[in-house]
Amino acid sequence: MWVIDNQDYLGKLDGWNRSAQFADGLFETMRIHDGKILGLPQHVARLSNDLARLNIQPPAGDLSDLLSSYAHTMADMSHVADGVMKVIISRGDSERGYGYHDEIKPHITVFYNQAAQLPDSVYTKGVDVVLLQTQCAIQPQLAGIKHLNRLENVLAKKELGTQAFEGLMQNHLGLIIEGAMSNVFFEHQGQLITPKLTLSGVAGVMRQHVLAFADKLGVKIEIRDISIDELAGFEHGFLSNSVMGIVPVKSLMQRDVKIGKLTMQLLKAWQSGVIYE
Amino acid sequence: MWVIDNQDYLGKLDGWNRSAQFADGLFETMRIHDGKILGLPQHVARLSNDLARLNIQPPAGDLSDLLSSYAHTMADMSHVADGVMKVIISRGDSERGYGYHDEIKPHITVFYNQAAQLPDSVYTKGVDVVLLQTQCAIQPQLAGIKHLNRLENVLAKKELGTQAFEGLMQNHLGLIIEGAMSNVFFEHQGQLITPKLTLSGVAGVMRQHVLAFADKLGVKIEIRDISIDELAGFEHGFLSNSVMGIVPVKSLMQRDVKIGKLTMQLLKAWQSGVIYE
Repeated sequence: MWVIDNQDYLGKLDGWNRSAQFADGLFETMRIHDGKILGLPQHVARLSNDLARLNIQPPAGDLSDLLSSYAHTMADMSHVADGVMKVIISRGDSERGYGYHDEIKPHITVFYNQAAQLPDSVYTKGVDVVLLQTQCAIQPQLAGIKHLNRLENVLAKKELGTQAFEGLMQNHLGLIIEGAMSNVFFEHQGQLITPKLTLSGVAGVMRQHVLAFADKLGVKIEIRDISIDELAGFEHGFLSNSVMGIVPVKSLMQRDVKIGKLTMQLLKAWQSGVIYE
Repeated sequence: MWVIDNQDYLGKLDGWNRSAQFADGLFETMRIHDGKILGLPQHVARLSNDLARLNIQPPAGDLSDLLSSYAHTMADMSHVADGVMKVIISRGDSERGYGYHDEIKPHITVFYNQAAQLPDSVYTKGVDVVLLQTQCAIQPQLAGIKHLNRLENVLAKKELGTQAFEGLMQNHLGLIIEGAMSNVFFEHQGQLITPKLTLSGVAGVMRQHVLAFADKLGVKIEIRDISIDELAGFEHGFLSNSVMGIVPVKSLMQRDVKIGKLTMQLLKAWQSGVIYE
């Protein structure tokens, strides 16, 4: 792992701030190909939007240039051109107490790892998806934001263990929200259906790519509440996130499902890079 | 501010771990008097219970001895005998990803500050309490735990600003849960009423002291769901937390309230230290 902490390049980072005290910040996980960030404009748009929602001061300068320069430096210094870059932007440093001064400066930490190669079968055959007990919080002011309050994902991942590739989480209202580490889509009678994320969950950048690309294809899209009972009726499904792209589902809560036609189109669009255009 | 990070005493701490990445940990805020922790057994009990709920490995050795030794060292090195000690226990260090190894070791960081002296009027006249828009998350697996996912408290504190001493937060079901930085109690017809924290909120140690002491006094206690509409009907109220103790309410959502008899009893029990016995 390679780390840059507030402009300093370090082998190992030690950094204390409001991220560690209150999870008072955001993060963004980006796939780097040939030293460049895939889907950069979408990452920048999401980050800007989420910073504004949390009233966190944006870093000085152009965010797009900043992220690109981090990616370039990381790829260069690590000699790893294809990696995963995680950027944490916290509100900054402060002492004890939830309050903060208006002049507080954001603190940026950047992590870089070699991209883990998933087995081919993940994409050709699909993966098993189960339903978890661990819930997604209901918190409208935080819903959709990729903030640092991720304890429930940690618990979900632990509960999932090795029983399946991914586990779906519901909220207290019994609505399906997302996977422990991905967004989820269902393909049914040619339509694309995905959970509404106004009460719970993280609106992933790859989810945005999927929605935009499906729209271009003229596919009917439903973003809505999905109850657990409905899962039994959906024909196909897939997962999305910025690191692993589009992952078809081969079983949903122990029920075998085939890989759908639209899923295959989206998977190919991701593999070829067309989905980022 | 004085800091100890994993046994090292530092003027300023830099520490990176799962607390900063995922808010994967707990914290405990304790009042130190004469180098000793007030309500130590209750803090230890709560911490042990919350560590177990999150499946975080407890620190090696006796937790009570460990906290006492931190308090002693801090009071000694800072020459501040009466302070506030904040202890963060995170699950430990790991690289990218929500998963962790079973052998992961907890990481402890200890902060120490001089105790801020609240004006006398806070205790003699009471404080203003308003209702905030910022909600408490609904997440049963995390409810009650003093974990590090505190972004909503940060937002609540920001919303509160200088409009009042404290702001109450509700959850998405319209239930009153707690203040941005305290638990809340209502005194009505001689009864003590406080929100149930099974879906949302933090079960503070001072809340435990209040409940135990009221029980000793033979007071009828109701721990239950409280809707916003009910707030208009309660005769008296007070706030509690480990740092500021018991704080009477003088206005509740712009309605003047008198300080109740039971509130005064509890306040005196805290001021004299009897509440800790």
